[in-house]
Parts: sequence; structure tokens; C-alpha cells
Amino acid sequence: MNNSELTQLLQSLAKGKTSVANTVERLKHFPVEDLGIAQLDHQRELRQGVPEVILGEHKSLEQLQIILTAMVKHGSNILVTRLSKDKATALCEQFPTAKYDGVARTFCLIQHEIKNSGVGKILIICAGTSDLPVAQEAAITARMLGNEVEELIDVGVAGIHRLLARQETLRQAAVLIVIAGMEGALPSVVGGLVAKPVIAVPTSVGYGASFGGIAALLGMLNSCASGVTVVNIDNGFGAAFAANRINKKA
Amino acid sequence: MNNSELTQLLQSLAKGKTSVANTVERLKHFPVEDLGIAQLDHQRELRQGVPEVILGEHKSLEQLQIILTAMVKHGSNILVTRLSKDKATALCEQFPTAKYDGVARTFCLIQHEIKNSGVGKILIICAGTSDLPVAQEAAITARMLGNEVEELIDVGVAGIHRLLARQETLRQAAVLIVIAGMEGALPSVVGGLVAKPVIAVPTSVGYGASFGGIAALLGMLNSCASGVTVVNIDNGFGAAFAANRINKKA
Amino acid sequence: MNNSELTQLLQSLAKGKTSVANTVERLKHFPVEDLGIAQLDHQRELRQGVPEVILGEHKSLEQLQIILTAMVKHGSNILVTRLSKDKATALCEQFPTAKYDGVARTFCLIQHEIKNSGVGKILIICAGTSDLPVAQEAAITARMLGNEVEELIDVGVAGIHRLLARQETLRQAAVLIVIAGMEGALPSVVGGLVAKPVIAVPTSVGYGASFGGIAALLGMLNSCASGVTVVNIDNGFGAAFAANRINKKA
Amino acid sequence: MNNSELTQLLQSLAKGKTSVANTVERLKHFPVEDLGIAQLDHQRELRQGVPEVILGEHKSLEQLQIILTAMVKHGSNILVTRLSKDKATALCEQFPTAKYDGVARTFCLIQHEIKNSGVGKILIICAGTSDLPVAQEAAITARMLGNEVEELIDVGVAGIHRLLARQETLRQAAVLIVIAGMEGALPSVVGGLVAKPVIAVPTSVGYGASFGGIAALLGMLNSCASGVTVVNIDNGFGAAFAANRINKKA
Amino acid sequence: MNNSELTQLLQSLAKGKTSVANTVERLKHFPVEDLGIAQLDHQRELRQGVPEVILGEHKSLEQLQIILTAMVKHGSNILVTRLSKDKATALCEQFPTAKYDGVARTFCLIQHEIKNSGVGKILIICAGTSDLPVAQEAAITARMLGNEVEELIDVGVAGIHRLLARQETLRQAAVLIVIAGMEGALPSVVGGLVAKPVIAVPTSVGYGASFGGIAALLGMLNSCASGVTVVNIDNGFGAAFAANRINKKA
Amino acid sequence: MNNSELTQLLQSLAKGKTSVANTVERLKHFPVEDLGIAQLDHQRELRQGVPEVILGEHKSLEQLQIILTAMVKHGSNILVTRLSKDKATALCEQFPTAKYDGVARTFCLIQHEIKNSGVGKILIICAGTSDLPVAQEAAITARMLGNEVEELIDVGVAGIHRLLARQETLRQAAVLIVIAGMEGALPSVVGGLVAKPVIAVPTSVGYGASFGGIAALLGMLNSCASGVTVVNIDNGFGAAFAANRINKKA
Amino acid sequence: MNNSELTQLLQSLAKGKTSVANTVERLKHFPVEDLGIAQLDHQRELRQGVPEVILGEHKSLEQLQIILTAMVKHGSNILVTRLSKDKATALCEQFPTAKYDGVARTFCLIQHEIKNSGVGKILIICAGTSDLPVAQEAAITARMLGNEVEELIDVGVAGIHRLLARQETLRQAAVLIVIAGMEGALPSVVGGLVAKPVIAVPTSVGYGASFGGIAALLGMLNSCASGVTVVNIDNGFGAAFAANRINKKA
Amino acid sequence: MNNSELTQLLQSLAKGKTSVANTVERLKHFPVEDLGIAQLDHQRELRQGVPEVILGEHKSLEQLQIILTAMVKHGSNILVTRLSKDKATALCEQFPTAKYDGVARTFCLIQHEIKNSGVGKILIICAGTSDLPVAQEAAITARMLGNEVEELIDVGVAGIHRLLARQETLRQAAVLIVIAGMEGALPSVVGGLVAKPVIAVPTSVGYGASFGGIAALLGMLNSCASGVTVVNIDNGFGAAFAANRINKKA
Repeated sequence: MNNSELTQLLQSLAKGKTSVANTVERLKHFPVEDLGIAQLDHQRELRQGVPEVILGEHKSLEQLQIILTAMVKHGSNILVTRLSKDKATALCEQFPTAKYDGVARTFCLIQHEIKNSGVGKILIICAGTSDLPVAQEAAITARMLGNEVEELIDVGVAGIHRLLARQETLRQAAVLIVIAGMEGALPSVVGGLVAKPVIAVPTSVGYGASFGGIAALLGMLNSCASGVTVVNIDNGFGAAFAANRINKKA
Repeated sequence: MNNSELTQLLQSLAKGKTSVANTVERLKHFPVEDLGIAQLDHQRELRQGVPEVILGEHKSLEQLQIILTAMVKHGSNILVTRLSKDKATALCEQFPTAKYDGVARTFCLIQHEIKNSGVGKILIICAGTSDLPVAQEAAITARMLGNEVEELIDVGVAGIHRLLARQETLRQAAVLIVIAGMEGALPSVVGGLVAKPVIAVPTSVGYGASFGGIAALLGMLNSCASGVTVVNIDNGFGAAFAANRINKKA
Repeated sequence: MNNSELTQLLQSLAKGKTSVANTVERLKHFPVEDLGIAQLDHQRELRQGVPEVILGEHKSLEQLQIILTAMVKHGSNILVTRLSKDKATALCEQFPTAKYDGVARTFCLIQHEIKNSGVGKILIICAGTSDLPVAQEAAITARMLGNEVEELIDVGVAGIHRLLARQETLRQAAVLIVIAGMEGALPSVVGGLVAKPVIAVPTSVGYGASFGGIAALLGMLNSCASGVTVVNIDNGFGAAFAANRINKKA
Repeated sequence: MNNSELTQLLQSLAKGKTSVANTVERLKHFPVEDLGIAQLDHQRELRQGVPEVILGEHKSLEQLQIILTAMVKHGSNILVTRLSKDKATALCEQFPTAKYDGVARTFCLIQHEIKNSGVGKILIICAGTSDLPVAQEAAITARMLGNEVEELIDVGVAGIHRLLARQETLRQAAVLIVIAGMEGALPSVVGGLVAKPVIAVPTSVGYGASFGGIAALLGMLNSCASGVTVVNIDNGFGAAFAANRINKKA
Repeated sequence: MNNSELTQLLQSLAKGKTSVANTVERLKHFPVEDLGIAQLDHQRELRQGVPEVILGEHKSLEQLQIILTAMVKHGSNILVTRLSKDKATALCEQFPTAKYDGVARTFCLIQHEIKNSGVGKILIICAGTSDLPVAQEAAITARMLGNEVEELIDVGVAGIHRLLARQETLRQAAVLIVIAGMEGALPSVVGGLVAKPVIAVPTSVGYGASFGGIAALLGMLNSCASGVTVVNIDNGFGAAFAANRINKKA
Repeated sequence: MNNSELTQLLQSLAKGKTSVANTVERLKHFPVEDLGIAQLDHQRELRQGVPEVILGEHKSLEQLQIILTAMVKHGSNILVTRLSKDKATALCEQFPTAKYDGVARTFCLIQHEIKNSGVGKILIICAGTSDLPVAQEAAITARMLGNEVEELIDVGVAGIHRLLARQETLRQAAVLIVIAGMEGALPSVVGGLVAKPVIAVPTSVGYGASFGGIAALLGMLNSCASGVTVVNIDNGFGAAFAANRINKKA
Repeated sequence: MNNSELTQLLQSLAKGKTSVANTVERLKHFPVEDLGIAQLDHQRELRQGVPEVILGEHKSLEQLQIILTAMVKHGSNILVTRLSKDKATALCEQFPTAKYDGVARTFCLIQHEIKNSGVGKILIICAGTSDLPVAQEAAITARMLGNEVEELIDVGVAGIHRLLARQETLRQAAVLIVIAGMEGALPSVVGGLVAKPVIAVPTSVGYGASFGGIAALLGMLNSCASGVTVVNIDNGFGAAFAANRINKKA
Repeated sequence: MNNSELTQLLQSLAKGKTSVANTVERLKHFPVEDLGIAQLDHQRELRQGVPEVILGEHKSLEQLQIILTAMVKHGSNILVTRLSKDKATALCEQFPTAKYDGVARTFCLIQHEIKNSGVGKILIICAGTSDLPVAQEAAITARMLGNEVEELIDVGVAGIHRLLARQETLRQAAVLIVIAGMEGALPSVVGGLVAKPVIAVPTSVGYGASFGGIAALLGMLNSCASGVTVVNIDNGFGAAFAANRINKKA
């Protein structure tokens, strides 16, 4: 149920064309589209200002095709994350205007223009070149949700002067997403340098006792810089979504 | 060393009133007060808008007395978190205007009035009565940092109607802190209901396979509600500090 | 050896038609068929009302062929779970009346009609599209064991209204199987809405700190909804088997 | 809102004394009693057939007193679990008709007679003497919820004949709760002997690599007996609650 | 260097036929053959009664060829464990009298007859068909070391009568190796039935919360049957080697 | 029920002196003494040559008193392990001939003489002084079960010459129990020096990343010395019981 | 920016040849070369005496090509570690003077002669043949950094005499790198034999409860030999880098 | 037994003054003093230049008294670490010249003067006031072993300027010990600033997901600064011992 449908229903009620009871009944059953394999939540855009984003991993090509076809009909902008290259290739053939980013593993299908609706700039910082896929996923997501984005790549703490040289950039951001693998120390340093919200993203970059990102995750959860918040390992999308919640005008 | 002192120093150098060697020497020692057992960072307020908060746990009474005495001299408002009752009793005798909260285990010493400097209201939600100490730590911290706070207690997901009955309250908040132990599911439901920033705090409430809060922590990190961010187990302080970073006017 | 055979043996002994030594010898070897690589437990149907189900994973094609051949001779209905596609293809050629489900990875060979012997309906609920393989394994198993099954797909807690819209369906079920990956919160909400038995199945859907289903497993074990029970990660079969134990007429 | 209040409301509606809209409004806000530190869910009895049970651990004496006082007024039967001896002593003085069980650590206050409403008998089996507290918590809970209970103590798998000697008892139960620490093997053996629902409860009994019950928990989750379900470590209450869900007449 | 050589050397020294310096020099280099990539320990047979066994995993084909060539020259019987099929194929071409077992993944090259030097029989018991590779590795190893072996396959605890029917076999063994995956309960039952040494081997058979054999390992370490000892996950070789240490005549 | 009683019963049946129904009834109840809180397994001595040993931890004083009273009546030698000092004091008053060892935390009550029934000597080796409680528990248990015991204390691998100086002692043992905390390396070295059975016992000695004995446990499970078997952390009793199984004459 | 450039800049300021604002601007941007995907830290050689080493894992071929091209221009000696064979093949074609070591998985490009600048010899010891890749990575790294290296292969603790025979070699080293998988006991023995710095490297060699090197890592962290330090699992590079820090002349 | 004694013994043998048998006997017993509960390794000073250090934890007062009495006789300087206050009080009464440090929990008894035998200065850096006990243990140990020590307290990464202001101090050290709890990021920053050896010590300071120091430990093992080595959690002693190995003149 979109805004106009909702408006129409309430106008009917106001004009006495429908009863309160009936309106309650209509509103009780939310406008969810049942695709058999999925319940498309078309009202999410109303509740959260953004359309449903599809997690591409764990879904078969067939399932993705059913879901995307329904969303395309609905006119939504579409973002699929963590999509493997082979599934992306098939989807791009079916939806030729879509664009797949091989580094970020994101699939974007823009059906209506995205307006910048953010208060300020989202700054995405990553510790090393190997963290780029997560940074790129965050950047694409943040832009899809209507934010201005700037990136600062390969400024890890073992060469602290690289970060310190960019303090002006840090201070100008409205929200900072800080991405690091291995020991995940970068958010602690950044969090100590700025007063703005810092969202930390641990990555699975590393080996041995990095345990697929656990070391970085624990490091970030225990950050000695106050007020750093954390998302799941490699979850660039989630960090961008959280940054968007923060950056949106009231 | 504040901005004007720094400018003055460099001007002295430019005008030949001081030597290069002397300037290097002055700049080497940042405005940190060395207490022997601690380096008080008086510049933090400049960088982050808030004074240093003291983690009371792991510090001896003697160490706390040295640190607080120095901060009191500096005129700062003081917040000590995770402070045991016996250390609090001794400190309250020494600093009679301070106030200790036995549930939150926080010690507050207000030396200058706190102004509300937030954009909106911070809503603190907790799943059960047992989560109250963490909720209280968050509320006290958020107020110390100049925010308006509202609380919603014992609205866990096993009785989902308790939460749904308060949707209006949820939607009016500028930032939401959602606190839960056991399976930590509450932030997922809240995150699906509102568009505003949601900070999840896992608590150590539970037993057996809750593993001191790990179950709740993992639940929150894997939240299916997009854009929920997480802080350390029982870290009400950190959640409030993050909420404050978000809620402050640009 | 069934009940009458056992009675007959002991009567022979009592009547002196057989010796003590001989009786001991007969009782030593239970009615298990020794296939060399396996001991087929033909008595399981007597004890539990259902034939032995074969776990396809970890068994070679050759081992499966030996076991299935023996079971076919015995006239049993056959269910193989967690069977890879390549082994399934070979088995389907050998047993052409069998049916392999590629999503559930189950292999079924029906040799005698299955009667509905359940008290009520088993409702299978899953949080997301990606949980479908586990839901499907549960549904096929429950039907093989003689139960009526209904499914509710993609009603996870981040869009809680999708579930609430189906409360009537929830209340009509005799047993509920609730399947979720990521934070595994769905059983807590369902468990709070119904009075009937709820069996929770964590899935390996997720990434990073979901740790292959550990997050969901811990979430479910710590559910704040009283009386939710849990099975192994991705164990749709086990959940259906447990539901069958509950749903069968006394 | 209890049954009579609900009935009255609906009668008003039926007689035209109140509007549908008003009724919807009344029903939208569930009858939750806000105690400040807790939201008492008086409707739980309607939804699940049992009153709210209080987890005594993590709650202060003051909090328990507030909650119990409210429940006593409401006339509910009251069960508090995991209650320490010192808090129990204080509560027993305040509520003299209550009864505290020092082994099970449960506090019961019976305000109205409990009727046996179960289909059959719940059999509680435990592996060793050390598992008695959990078995006792399960037994008390199951009886509070209106079930007939039988117990079988110290029949662990290292002396398998002790269990085999009681097969008749096993087969007569409607639901079986099987409790074990250390390697937690007992439910696998029991699950292979009976066709009825088996709920496994791991206990923290053991030392070293039992890791506070993790060994038993993992053992039970991986049980080779099909359809065994598991609850949290030491969660006798949860097992009894689940058994009650199963055992209740439709 | 064997016993007599050592005696001879010291006698030479005592008789002045050799110098102190020379003796020190001789004793400094133990009878280890340096292959560059490995130090062949030809004295192990003296110390432990068995030749060095080669762990095939983690070694390249080239490394295995160098080691085997040296051992063949030395006339030893050779056992390589955990050898992949492709490396085995290449080695079998080079050493045509060798024999590779595809289930156990062992490679055997017999250069001199193996005599039965055991006190009694080693009984190898496994819980399920899927545990066969580990059972087979144990059986081949035990035979290579000069023991008589008997096997009992697929007698897991969910069908306890299969095991009980074979109690006579259990009691006749000198040493018992008990192999199980999943919950690993079998050694507890066997350990309670016999008085002889029981060596438990957890296997990686299972899925989800079996965590690659951790569940079985913990189960076995916490066995309630006294005096069960445990080896590494899937370590059939180690169990057989330990059984051989026990079974050898003094 | 011993062997002759069993034979007599079956002969009665064969001779018609007893009915089939009666025999079934007799055989249904094994010779277990039901104490309410425990099932005393008087047949264990028949099956395993040793009486039941009581794990003192997790049992209340009252429970221990009931169990010991029954065992004393039966004339058994009694061993209680992991018994706290306060419970021991009370039991020693009640059973004045018993002896409590404060280091090993064992309680022994000898009612009939223990004969040495071992093949050879059990050698107990420990790495450090801090491992003495576990070594002592092993020594007392082994002696209670009728074995000759020798001890070698504080010969850890960081001073390898201390161990090498005692190689003769190592070689003379029939079975070796090797006890170590921290990295648990001692069994690997011992296992490489002798051909006899080596049972490794990890202890909880250490701190930080020793994780209460996990480091030592993992070290021992991964021992590069072939055929080392392992028991639970701090399980001196289990190691001695296993050594006794090995050391007993056939 | 090297020392002389920095001095010149400040002298310009002191002499009035440049403004304060300009100096601040110059000092803000450290001498880091921004490649878009990476920030090349050309100053690292100044700070640490060695050029930046590239971790090849997690970087795409394209990223490596960009980075290496820039480093080649700068005239640096280049070391890439953990480089897969396929990426190495492509890089060797582009940089024909480079050399790839397939065992160590290192890529070396020498552009200027490496002088031995170490105080003494670095001795690299490994426990088994399977640890060779890590040993080789350490050896190549140590030589690239200007150290003399000696290796001792396959001297694990299960055949302790192999190590003891080489005590002279141990004592002559200036720094020892000790590499072991499985239980990781070798550094404890070596650390007890020498007075020089010992760096322990756990490897992922092993299976089952070695958990990819965790067992060895924990063993080494808990070494009973005082003053053994540890690096990440399989981190031969890090050990060599640390050894180089120690071995360099003041 | 020192070098000259050993030479004398072998010369006696060469000259026929002693028999082979006698020499073997003499060499069998290394110069270890057997105290029953411990083997005092008087030769350690020969091998490692330092006397044996006693780990006070896990040892009873009686055991410590036996060991210290023997060491005092031998004239050694004595260091006991991790000693509780109550045991220290008793020991200080017995050995009045000893000194106990309540923060570091170390007990020192100086019997002969300690000479500075280090190449340079050991710098001990810690992140927070709460890390002081570990820093103090390291400082006392390093001084006991004959090193000059300097300390830098409370310079954690959340206020990075505090560390940067002390770069001169960092660069002047010969070895750096860097101590931090929580996320353990400090060694990464320090390791990037200096070329000298950096030994990282994780501490158990923190709460929740710091898991008693695991977060800091993993952070340090995964440090992006090359060549940082790590010791056990809270192991200030081990870090100082390692620093001493590095700092000693060749």
C-alpha cells in the first residue's frame, strides 16, 4: 500500500464512505505481496524511507528472478548485495539496465532518480587495500539511499601519519564508517579524533588468529574510544544503512 | 593547548620571537596532564565536546582519588561508570556533592550546569526488568552529556503486544537504544518498526547458553533489521555516548 | 523379532521344547540385519512407529546402494536426507519410482501408502526465503511420517506485521516448527503468541558473526518465550520427526 | 483483562452499546499492568493457558516484591525460578503461604487449586544424583502447570541396565524429559527406546571440558536418536513448560 | 645406534682406544638420517617397537617420495596415513608392491612379514556406517603393528539392542577402540559394559552443532564411564597405536 | 545378581519351577539398589572388577551421607573424589575410619584389604609442583584399585634434562600417566621415549590463554607422539582408572 | 619527506621565506603516495629500516600490479607474501627479474643489493616436514631484510634426541625462530635450552582438534619456558621481521 | 654440575680413574635438587643467565616455603610472581629482607647485587591506568634481571596525541614492551613508529566481549605492524624475560 492508496482509504473514512471498523480491518492486514517463496514488504519504504534490500547470498537464481520481477513491476529501485558473479550475469541479461559491481558484489537497478536527502557527507574509511570490497559495498549502498559519500582508502594504524594527515577530511564528515580487518584498531583512533558518529565494520581480511574477522570484531566491540558502534563482519551494507538512518533530515 | 595558544606559538616562530628548536619542543608535549598513574586528556572536550569519562572497574580507590582530584580542580563535570559500592562510598565521603546510583553503578559530580544540546529525544528501551542496570547507566550517561531521555522498560518480544502498544513513542524518538539479554531479539523488531538510528546493547542477563551475553551479542550483530548497530555487552555507557554523537546539533 | 515371536520362544523354553542355552543364544541376536557396513534395525518401526531414516551425507554411493537395496526388499518406505545431487541422480536411476527434491535434498521412495495419523496440522514457519531448504526438508519428512503440513514462508521479525497478519493460522496449528537463520528471533515471537508446542530450527543462513548458525542456535536456546525447544542447525528432518512424535494419536 | 472483562466488552458491542471502532481501540491496547520496573502481562494466561513465571535470578529483592505484590492482588498462582536462598527467605516472610524448595530453588505461591489438565503423565528422567536440582525444578513446574509427574533418578548410560530395567515406565509416559550433564548421552538412548516426545535438558554438572554444560548441550543437539529436542543448560523450567504445551488436551 | 654399539663406544673410551673429544663427538649425532626436508628417526623402532609412521596430509608428493625412498632402502615396513587419492596413485606407480585403501586413505608397503605380537584381540566398534573410514584406518594400523583385529560396525546408541546383542564379543576383547561422531555417546555405554581398556575416537561425522567433531570429542572427554581415554578427532591411527602399546606382551 | 543366581533362575524356569511371567519379572529388575536420590549399582564390581566411585562435587552432604551409608552396609571399599574440605570434615566424623587427603581432595574408606593385582608399576609423572593435586588424586585412585604406584614430580619440558635423567624410571613402568598444565607438552616427549601406554592428563594450571586447561588439553590431543591418549582436564581419577584397566592381569 | 627536507621547510619558515599557513599545509600531507586503492608509505624505510612488505592474499591481481609498478619506480626491493601461484605467474611475466618460491608462496624482486646488517645468525627451527612452507617464508623474509639464516628441519619433540644432538647449533644463534604445528611444544624445549630470544610460530599443520593452528598457538602462549614470544598462526614473515628487529645493530 | 665438573668427570673416565658404569651413574642424575614436591634446576642460571623464577599462583604456602628455603641456601636472588597478599604476608615474615609489591603481586628477595647488563633501556608502555599491575610486574622483573627500565603510562590510542608527544622516548628505547587491554591496539601504532623490537602484552582489562583479554590477545596477534610479538594475557613477567633475552650483551 503506497501513500496515495493510504490517503484514499482515509479520505473514504473521513467522508463516511467506509466505516471505522472496515478501515481498521484494511489497515490490519498490511500490504504484503505473497510470492510463495517470499513476502514482499512494500510498506517498508513507508516505515523506513527505503525499499527492501535483497541479500543475494543463500538465494537461488530462480528465487531472485521471482523477487526482482515483482519489485520491478512495483517501480522500486532495487539493490541486491552479496551476489555471486554467475547469478549476477544471468540477472543482468534479464534486467539489462541493471549494473553489477564485481568488487562490491552489488547489483543495482535504478528505476527512479535518487535524490540526496542527507544532512551531510558520509565518510568511508578503510584500513587496507584488501578491505575495498566492503568499503565499496558501503559506498554503493549509501548512495542508493540518497547520501553524498567520500572515501579514504588504506590509512591503517601501522602508518598512523597517513590518517593524521587527513584530519580535516575526518572532521568535515557528518557520519564516519570505519572499516578494518586484522586487529581492527582503526575505529579506536578515528573515534578519538572526531565528535561525530563512528560506525565500525570488521572485515574478514587476515589469516590464522584473525578467525575470519573475529579478532577485528572483538577489537571494535572493545574500542577504548567511547561511543563507537559496530556491525557484523564484512557488513558494509549494514553500516551504510545505519549511517543513512543517522544522516537523514528529521 | 587550545586553538589560540597554538596560533600564538606559530606566530612567534614566524616573527622570529622563538626558535625552530623551541617550537618543536613546545609542540612535542601536547596539553596532557601527567598524573603519574594516568595522562589526563584535557583536550578531549575540545575534540569531542564531552569531558573524559572514567571507567571505575579495574582502578583502585587510590587511583580514582588521584584522577578525580585533578578533574575537580579543572572544573569538569565528572562521570565514573562501573563503580563498585565500596569504592563509591569512599569517594562520596571525599566529594560530598557527588551522587552514586546503586543500580547503574555510576558516580556523578556536577560542577557546572548541563544544557540540553540534543536535536531530539533519546529513547531507551529494555526487554526485561533484569536489564534495568544497563538501561539506567545509559540514561544517566545520556543526561550527563546533555540529552533528553525517555525510557520503556520490560517490553521483550515474548509479549510482542507490549511493544506494539507503544509504537507512537518509538516513532517520536530521535535515537533509540534497545537493550536486551537472553536471545537479544528486541532490536530486530524495533529496527523494523522505525526509520531512526537504533543502537543495540546486549546484556549479560540469562544463564547457560547465554554465555554471559554472547548469545544476545551475536543475535544483535546478525539482526535481520537493516542498519542496527551494536556496542559491547552491558555497555549502556557506550550506547549513550554513541546516541549523543548522533543526537547533537551539527 | 516381533512380540509374538518372542512369546513363542519363551513358551518353548517353558514347555521344555528348547534348552536354556538355546534360548540364551536366540535372545542374544536381536532382529537386526547385518549388511557388513550397516546394521539395519528392522525393529525400529515396532518401537517408534516409523522406519529408519538414512542420513545421506558422509555415506558413499556404494554404501547407500547396499542399504537401500536391503530396505526395498523389506518393503519399507524410504527417506534419505542431506543427499547430494550426484548421488541422488545415480540412486534415482537404480530406483526409478523414487523422487529427489533438489531444494530439500531429500530422496523418497514410497512403497506403501502413507496415512494421515496426526492429531492436527503441523505448521512450518520460516523467517526468510533463504531458509526454504530447511523448511522443505521438514515438510517432506513430516508428510512421509503421516502428518498434514502447512507452510508460512518469509515472515521474519524485521517486518513483524507479516507474522501478526497470520495469527489465525498460527493458532490453528497443533505443532509449530519455526525456522530462522541470522539472529533466530522468530521462535521467541511465535512462542509468545501461541500455547501449542513450538520447535525452533536454527539455520546456517547468514554470514560473518552468524558463524554458520551458532548465532541463531544460541538465540533459540535462550528464547525468552517459555517452552520453546530446539534442534540442531539446519535440522529440518529432526524438527519434523519431533513434531511427528507430538502430533501422533496416543 | 480477564475473561469476564473481555466477555463484557464483547457483549456491549453485540448489544450496540459500544461501537466496533471503540472495541477495536480497547482491544488494541492489551491489558498490561505497568509497574514501572516491569510490564505485567495479565493476558498471558489467556494466550498460553498459564500465568507469567518469574525468573528470580538477576532481579533484586525489591523488584521481586513489587512484581509479586501485583500478581498476588491479581489472584494468580505464582512461580519464581532460580531464586537464591536469601531472597527466598525474605519473600517467604512477606508471603507466608508460599513454599520455597531449596534444591530446585523455586518459590511457589498457590492461590487457587491446580487441576490436572494433561493428556498423560510427564516422566522426568535424570542421569545422576547431581542432576536432581534441574529435575526438581522441572517436576515442580510441570505440577504447577497442571500435569501428573513421575521421576526416574540416576539411570545414566554408564550403567545402562538401570535404564533398561525401567522400559515399561518409559513406554507409559506421554512426554519424557531427559536430564543429563557430562556427555549428555542419556536422551539418545531414551529417544531410541520410545516413540513419544523426548525433551533433553543438558546440565552444568561436570568439570573441565564439560565447560559448564556445553559438552552435554552439544551432545544432545547432535543426538543420533531422531526427533529429540533440546532446551537451555539447566533449564528444567523450560523443559517442563514445553512438556506442558505438548501434554495439554487440545 | 643400537645398544651394543653404544656399549662398544663407551668401552673403547674406557680402554683408551678413543679420546673423550671423539666420544663426545660420536654421541652428539644420534642415529638420525638427515634427508634435508626430514630427519628420519631410525632409532624409533628400538625405542617403541614400531617404525616411524608418515602423516601423508600436509606433505607434498615430492617430500613423500624422498622419505619413502629412504625408508624402503632401510627395509622398513611403511605406513602412510591420511593420504589423498592423487598422491597415492603416484606413489603406487613408484612402489608397485604397495597397497592403497581408498576408504581408510592409508598406504601400506610391507617389506618383511608382520607377526602377531599381541596379548589378545583389538576390537574396533563404530557407531555408524559413516564412521567406517576411521574404523578402517584403525584396523589397518593395528594389523600393521602386529595385532589381531575384529570389527563391529553400526551399533550406535539410538538402537541400543544392536550393541547389547554383542556383549560376548565385547567381553572377549583385550582392548576396545570405540568410534563415534555426532554426540559420541557410544564409548560411555561400552565403557560401562566391560572392564578392559576403552579408547574413544570422536569423528567429524555430523553437521551443524557437531562442529566437525567437537561435540563428539567433548562427549567422550566427559564420559560418565570411568577410565575411557580419548584421542584426536578422526584419529583412527592414534587409537590403534595406543591399543598396540597396551596389547603388546611385556 | 551374580552369575550363579542368574543361572539358577533360568534353570528354575527350564524345570518348570517358575513361570515365564515370573522370570520376565525377575529379569526386569536388575540388582540395583534404589536410594531415591541414587541407584546404587552393586553389579559394577562384577562387570568392571571395581566398586562404584563417587564424584563428590555437585552432591550435597545429605546425598553423600545416604549413598555412603548404603555402601558401607554393602561392605565395599569407598572412594569419593573432588570432595570439598567442609563436606569431608562432616563425613570423617560420621565415618571415623575414613581418611581425607586435602591435596587430592579424596576421601577413602577401606573396609577390606586391597591386593596388588597389577601386571607392573603405574608411573605418575607431573610437569610442575602446581600439578600435584591431580597427581595425588591419580596415585590414591590407582592404589585403591590395587596397583603399585611410583611418582616423578616437577619434570616439565622447559628443563628437559630433569626428565632425561630419569629415563630408566620411565622405561620400567607398565603404564605411564603424564600430567601437565600450561602448554601440556610433557606427554609428547614422554610418548617419544617409551613404548608403553601413555595416558595424558591436562590440568587447569596456568592463566590467561591457558583457558582453564584448554591449551593443555588441545596440546595433548594433538600430540605428535603416536598413541598418547587423553582424559578430561584435572581428571587424575579417570587416568588412574584407565591405567588400572590396562594394568590388570587378564 | 626525509629529515633534511623537513629541516629545510622549518628553516624557510624561520627565515620568513614561507608563511605559517603554507607550512601547516605542507606538514599536513605526509610523504605518502596515493594510488587510489592504496597509500604507499615511502617513509616506512626511514622509520623502520625496511621497505613496506605486501600481503598478497586478499588483493586482486590488478591491485598488486598497481602497487608493484609504483614500488618498482621508487627503486625499492619488493617482497610479496602469501601470494597464490596463479597471481604469481602473471606478476612474474610482468616483472621478469622477480622470483617466486612455490613452497613459501613469496615473490621477491631485488632492485638493489641486500647487505648483511645483522649482529649474528637467525636460526629457523621447525618441528616437521609439513612446517616447511612457514619456515621457508621466514628464511626468505629474514634474508631479504639483510640477515644470515640457518635452518634446522624436522626436529620435533616426539624424537627429542634429534634436537638435543644439535644443541651447539642452537647456542650459536643470535635469534631463534621455532616453528611447529599440532601441539606446538618445540619452543618450550628450545626456550629451556638457550638464553637467546626465541620467537615461536604456530602452524596450521594438524587436523581435528588442532583447529587450524589454535592448539599450537595456545601451547606457545602458555609455554613454560620463560620469555618465549609468539606471532600469528603460519606467520613466518612476522617472525622473521621480529627477528630482524632484534638482530639489527643498534 | 658446571662445565668444569663435567670435564673432570670425563677426564677421570678417560684416565681409568672411574668406571664406565660409574660415569653413566653420575651423568644420569643431572644437577637438579629434588625437594620432593619440586626439582630445583640449579643449572638454569648456567643455561640462561638467570635463576629460576617461581610462579606463586597454584602453589600452597607450604610448597613455596620449601622451595624458597632451598633457594635461599643456594644464595640465589629470588623472584616470585602472581603471589596473593596473604601468602606474601606469611613469606615476608619468614624472609624479612624480602619485599612484596602489592600492585604487581611480586615478591623479591635480593641476596646479591644486580648489575645492569643490558645493551640499552627497556621501555614499558601501557594503554591505561588499569594496566598498571601488568606494567609493574614487567618493570620489576626486568630490573631483577639486570636491565634499565623506563615507563610510559596511560597513552592509549583513543587519545593518540598522548603517544605521539612521546615519540622521542619511543625511539630511544632498545626494546619496547607495550601493554594494553580492551581492543589491544596500542602495539600496532607503536610498532609502526619504531624500528626496535616490540613485545605486546594483552591484559584482562575490559568487560563483556573482551572475554578476559581474548580480544586484546587476538588484536595483538593480528597486528598490522610487522614483527610485533606477543606473550600470554597479563604476562608482564614473560614480556620482561623476553626483553631481557633481547637486551643482553652477546
